[in-house]
Amino acid sequence: MATDPNLRRERPEPVSGEGEFAFIDRLAERLPSPPAGQTWIGDDCAVLADGRLIATDLLVEGVHFRSAWADPVDIGFKALAVNLSDIAAMGGTPEAAVVAVALPTGRPGLADELLAGLMECAERFGCPLVGGDTSTGPDLFLAVTVTGTATTPVLRSGAGPGETVFVTGPLGAAAAALAHLEAGEPATTAVALHRPLPRLGEGRAATEAGATAMLDLSDGLAVDIRHIAKASGVGIELDPDRIPVAEGATLPQAVGGGDDYELCFTAPDPDRVRAAFERAGRREPSAIGVTITDGDVTFGDQPLEGGWEHRLR
Amino acid sequence: MATDPNLRRERPEPVSGEGEFAFIDRLAERLPSPPAGQTWIGDDCAVLADGRLIATDLLVEGVHFRSAWADPVDIGFKALAVNLSDIAAMGGTPEAAVVAVALPTGRPGLADELLAGLMECAERFGCPLVGGDTSTGPDLFLAVTVTGTATTPVLRSGAGPGETVFVTGPLGAAAAALAHLEAGEPATTAVALHRPLPRLGEGRAATEAGATAMLDLSDGLAVDIRHIAKASGVGIELDPDRIPVAEGATLPQAVGGGDDYELCFTAPDPDRVRAAFERAGRREPSAIGVTITDGDVTFGDQPLEGGWEHRLR
Repeated sequence: MATDPNLRRERPEPVSGEGEFAFIDRLAERLPSPPAGQTWIGDDCAVLADGRLIATDLLVEGVHFRSAWADPVDIGFKALAVNLSDIAAMGGTPEAAVVAVALPTGRPGLADELLAGLMECAERFGCPLVGGDTSTGPDLFLAVTVTGTATTPVLRSGAGPGETVFVTGPLGAAAAALAHLEAGEPATTAVALHRPLPRLGEGRAATEAGATAMLDLSDGLAVDIRHIAKASGVGIELDPDRIPVAEGATLPQAVGGGDDYELCFTAPDPDRVRAAFERAGRREPSAIGVTITDGDVTFGDQPLEGGWEHRLR
Repeated sequence: MATDPNLRRERPEPVSGEGEFAFIDRLAERLPSPPAGQTWIGDDCAVLADGRLIATDLLVEGVHFRSAWADPVDIGFKALAVNLSDIAAMGGTPEAAVVAVALPTGRPGLADELLAGLMECAERFGCPLVGGDTSTGPDLFLAVTVTGTATTPVLRSGAGPGETVFVTGPLGAAAAALAHLEAGEPATTAVALHRPLPRLGEGRAATEAGATAMLDLSDGLAVDIRHIAKASGVGIELDPDRIPVAEGATLPQAVGGGDDYELCFTAPDPDRVRAAFERAGRREPSAIGVTITDGDVTFGDQPLEGGWEHRLR
C-alpha cells in the first residue's frame, strides 16, 4: 500500500457522493445551528460556550505516516502537536488532552514510545494528558482530542477587504523533508515533518493584534488560504516574492507543501501586528499578501490553482 | 481473526510488562498530580476545573464489534452512547461530542449509516456532535470524545462502610444476546448489546441522593464492582438473591457479562435514593449489597472471583 506521512487530515474541497471525506461534510449539513457565540464544524476548533474550544485529529498508520520514516516517539509528539495547533489557530490556550489509541500486538515498546512523545509534547506546551482509552487494533491509530479556551476565538470567517495576510514562519520544510525521504535521501529538515511546533504564543499575539481570520497551515498555503477567502468572502492577492521559504525548501514546496503548522492570519493593522509579536517575544510574522473585496486567490499575476497535487492514494 | 463485540475497552487488572493495556496504566504513573478538585486518569471521566468532564472511548472493528452482527447505524449510536454513559457515571450532563473516524474504502453507505446512528444518539441525549476528523483506514475505527459538566462529580473512591450498593436496572441482557449470536441463534435481547442507553437521569438522581461512589457497568458487575471497592478502600457484600437479572438472561450473565451500561453506586441512605429516583421519574434502583469496613468483594458466602472469563483474543 502506498503510504504518505504528509497526507492530509482534511480535504480541501468537499467531495460529493459516497466516501470517507463526505463524513464531516454530511455531519455539518445535518447539524442544527449552534447557539449564539458558538461555532461547530468548519473551523480549526469547535467553539462552545464561554470561548471553550475542542478539536480532534487522528493519525492512522499507513495513511498519515509511514512507520519506516517516523519513530513512535515522534508520532506521539505529532499526534498531540497537531491538535494544539488547532487551539493555536483560534488564538487559544490549551487546557487538557485525551487520547484514544489502537495498538497492534507484537510491537513491544510501541506503547511506551508513543507515550513518551505524547508526554513530551504535553509538558512542553502545558497541556496535560488527562485520560485515554486503549485497545488492540490491526494498525496503529491515534485520536487525540484537546480542549482549550480563547477569550476571543478567531475564526476563518472574519477577514474584510484591505487587510494584510501574514504567516508566522517559513514554509516548506516538511514538504522538503518528505521529498527527500521519498527519494531515499537523508532529510535534513525531517524535524519539521515529524515534530511540528504549535504556534500557541503566536496565535495569542495575533489575537491581541486584532487578527480577523486565522487557521493553521496543515494542508499547505495554497489549499488553506482558500478556506479564509471562502469563509470570509474576500479575494486574496499573495505576493510570491514575500513568501518565506524555509531553508532547504523550494518556493513550490513552501506554497504547495503541507504539514507546516505555521499560522496564517489576516489583520487590518500591520504595525499593531508587529508590536504585538514583539511584545510577546515571537518572531515577526511575514506579510505575504492582501485581502481584496472579492475575486479568487491570486499568486502574483496568476490564479492560485489547487496546484499542489493532493497526495491521496 | 476471532472477534467479539463484547470485548472490553478496559482491562480489570493492570497488566505489567509490554502490551497495549499498559498504555493507560503507564500514562497514569507518569502524570503529575492534578490541581485540587480535579481528577485525571482513573475514573469514568477526567474531572477538570469547575466540574467539567471529559471522556473518550474507542470502538475498533474486529475488536469491539463484529460488523456481521452490528449494523453501522448501531455502531455509530453505541460509539456515542458509551461515552455518554461515562458522563452519566459521574452524575454529569453532556455538553458536546467530537468524533474521529477511520473508514475503510469500498464500503459505500458506511459513512452515512455511522453518522445516522451518531446523530440519533446525539439528538436523543441532547449532546451535539460539534466536530470531527476523518480519514481512510484499514479497518473501521471510531473514537468519540464527550465533554460535560457535573456540579458534584461522583468518583469511584468515595464509598464508606455501612452504605448500600445499588444498580439502576436489570443486568445480563447484552451478555445473553452475545451468547445467542455466538451460537448462531436469534438474539431477542440484541438491542441491549447494540443500543446501550446512557443512564444520565439516573446518574444525576443518584448524585442528588448523596451517592458516594459510582461507575457504569461496562465490563460487568463482577469486574466493575471491584473498582469501587479498591478505589474506596471498602469491602462489598453482594446478595445473589437481589441481583436484578434481565429477562432472557441468567444470573451468571448478569454478574459476569459486560456491556450493560447500567450504573452501580453506593449511598448511605436508601430512602433518600428511592425518593430521588421517584422525583426524577426513574425506575427504582435495586439494592444489591452493602459496603463493609474492609475485605474483598463477596457474593453470598463466596468470594467473587474474577469469574467472567475475559474474552481477549
